[in-house]
Amino acid sequence: MFESYLPTRIVFGVGAIEKLPKLVTNLGKKTMIVTGRKSTKVTGLLDRVKAMLEKVGIEVLVFDKVQPNPISDHVDEAAKIAIEQNVEFIIGLGGGSAIDSAKAVAIAAAMKDSFWNYTNAGGNKKPDKALPVIAIPTTHGTGTEADPFAVITNPRTKEKVGIGYDVIFPKISIVDPSLMTTLPKDQTAYTSMDAFYHSLEAFLNIDANPYSDLLAIDSMKRIVSFLMRAYVNGEDIEARTNLAWASTEAGITETLTGVIANHAIEHGLSGFNEQLPHGLGLCITGPYLLEYMFEECKERLAVLTKHVFNIDEFNVNKAARLFIEKLYEFQDLFNLNEKLSKFGFKEQDLPEIAKVAYRIMKGVVVKSPKKLEEKDLVEIMKKAL
Amino acid sequence: MFESYLPTRIVFGVGAIEKLPKLVTNLGKKTMIVTGRKSTKVTGLLDRVKAMLEKVGIEVLVFDKVQPNPISDHVDEAAKIAIEQNVEFIIGLGGGSAIDSAKAVAIAAAMKDSFWNYTNAGGNKKPDKALPVIAIPTTHGTGTEADPFAVITNPRTKEKVGIGYDVIFPKISIVDPSLMTTLPKDQTAYTSMDAFYHSLEAFLNIDANPYSDLLAIDSMKRIVSFLMRAYVNGEDIEARTNLAWASTEAGITETLTGVIANHAIEHGLSGFNEQLPHGLGLCITGPYLLEYMFEECKERLAVLTKHVFNIDEFNVNKAARLFIEKLYEFQDLFNLNEKLSKFGFKEQDLPEIAKVAYRIMKGVVVKSPKKLEEKDLVEIMKKAL
Ligand SMILES: [Fe+2]
Ligand SMILES: [Fe+2]
Repeated sequence: MFESYLPTRIVFGVGAIEKLPKLVTNLGKKTMIVTGRKSTKVTGLLDRVKAMLEKVGIEVLVFDKVQPNPISDHVDEAAKIAIEQNVEFIIGLGGGSAIDSAKAVAIAAAMKDSFWNYTNAGGNKKPDKALPVIAIPTTHGTGTEADPFAVITNPRTKEKVGIGYDVIFPKISIVDPSLMTTLPKDQTAYTSMDAFYHSLEAFLNIDANPYSDLLAIDSMKRIVSFLMRAYVNGEDIEARTNLAWASTEAGITETLTGVIANHAIEHGLSGFNEQLPHGLGLCITGPYLLEYMFEECKERLAVLTKHVFNIDEFNVNKAARLFIEKLYEFQDLFNLNEKLSKFGFKEQDLPEIAKVAYRIMKGVVVKSPKKLEEKDLVEIMKKAL
Repeated sequence: MFESYLPTRIVFGVGAIEKLPKLVTNLGKKTMIVTGRKSTKVTGLLDRVKAMLEKVGIEVLVFDKVQPNPISDHVDEAAKIAIEQNVEFIIGLGGGSAIDSAKAVAIAAAMKDSFWNYTNAGGNKKPDKALPVIAIPTTHGTGTEADPFAVITNPRTKEKVGIGYDVIFPKISIVDPSLMTTLPKDQTAYTSMDAFYHSLEAFLNIDANPYSDLLAIDSMKRIVSFLMRAYVNGEDIEARTNLAWASTEAGITETLTGVIANHAIEHGLSGFNEQLPHGLGLCITGPYLLEYMFEECKERLAVLTKHVFNIDEFNVNKAARLFIEKLYEFQDLFNLNEKLSKFGFKEQDLPEIAKVAYRIMKGVVVKSPKKLEEKDLVEIMKKAL
């Protein structure tokens, strides 16, 4: 038995951004754009979106302090302004950090309360409402445009926490691949692999279902087929379009099924050292997690060997081994097989990281096909050290 | 560019019906079940659902006059009762006719107005609200559990009209294959082929997009693989589950993309003679429509030859011909290659039928890959006579 619920209106395609003014007609006359410190300014996108909205009489505030691994202090700061200024809807413009922050601001502003109270690491309160959120991603990876999740870090406790509430499904998501052509090489690889692992983990999740399986396989295939093209030539709009759709498909799999232990580990790691990019962290530990639970997931991996890497191998053990091998080789093309030690992680840090990961993300760890305890997470990280 | 919007919570799987009382907790204390005259009584399902709801303190009215090819008079009759009795939500229980009627009642009751005013053949008004609709299908075909459409016939004008409004997306759809095991052989074939044609037509629609393509192919594959099993043994729950999910997938393709001329023709035909089952009507004209627009759709058909029928043929013309051939053969297994004359249609009726079909369903005719006028619809029906 499974549930499918995705109330977001997703407008997908090159040029979709032009529909923004029309799409927000009924949402109010005052909005706040939540965005990062740099890229949407450098590309001119922030000004362009602001102008589009002002032209139809919408007043626009800009909150532009969002950083990678966004922090709860900024969420509260933005929410305070939104409350004071009677902002009616929130636009998340940028990468996952901008859109996740927009979702968090939407809760804090509507509930008139500190955001951290709505996390399981904080007050564990449930929001019964949020301001409407419009998601406009400029990267192809997080899937936040098609899910009810946001990941925010508490800078004091170093807890990187994921929240998920129906009220923060974006009301509208505009996924326009033409906004993604300026994404640098490394971000192109990191965000695409984030999407890849959303799909891979959903496919291995014990709650996997035919709907998310279908989307998961399709999105992994697209990433395997098109990532190199976008990596070599960022302006390749066909490649960007496929990666953007792969990211949205992967986001839907997160909503339908969800990630497993690899994401929990990564949240532990990048909560501890925020210099570690999310997508890269997933690639570093991912293959070791697959090895660690090989017996429990080999039949599913064998399916992916055929459908994602197009290899016919009828022996299940061999086929599953081939998947891990091909994944590793694929990651190598983009220099994604790093070691944790390069980011300053030491063996003695791992138990504490595993403890935080397990506490904050136990809900996804238990969806892994093998029963994994804190000590198992330590073992997996140790191999990636 | 395409849009994806499906705000329905779909609960899918064997036993899903047990979740009904919990799912409707916040919808109110008084409901109306809209259902047909016979099957949900014979199977005991109506009593079972009624008892489940009454047990949690929900008052249940039953409107059980719905007939195949449901009529607007019954919609207005049910809506009148719903208004008088302050019904808070509507449950459509049964086949497509029951659920479509429930959707129509939800509009008429909320707008306190005659239903026909909200059709393009009637007053052409737009409803800005509807009572919440819960869809509980007992057939696997219409896809109405995953779309904003309803098809209702005006018994006086013989117009069989499809409406589509966001307000009648079911709030919740419970798709439980165990409710479908009593479906008779002929209905098993008809409703499955209805789903098949939703997917096939969406795949050939000029607005086809990667999301609906993915679901369309998957649903056609499931129907080709499992229809015979359910046909031979109605109790085969694995087969019913696959057909039920295929129907829901096909419903999603209707929402994402939509049908083309074959559905328009069928509405013309069964509006004229309501003895013609919808799914059978689609099978009768379907292959002739494909022939008629062969040049315009052959490349898409060739894709389906590979993915739906698992046949490798690299010559596009041959592959596309093979699709039509295999579809015809497949339909033949279930005696679906009937002739219109068997249902009393005569050549002189066809221009009037085409005229009605074109007037009422022009919106879908123009989504066909070939430009089709009334006279083309006549030609296609003539071949199926
Ligand atoms: Fe992620
Ligand atoms: Fe249909």
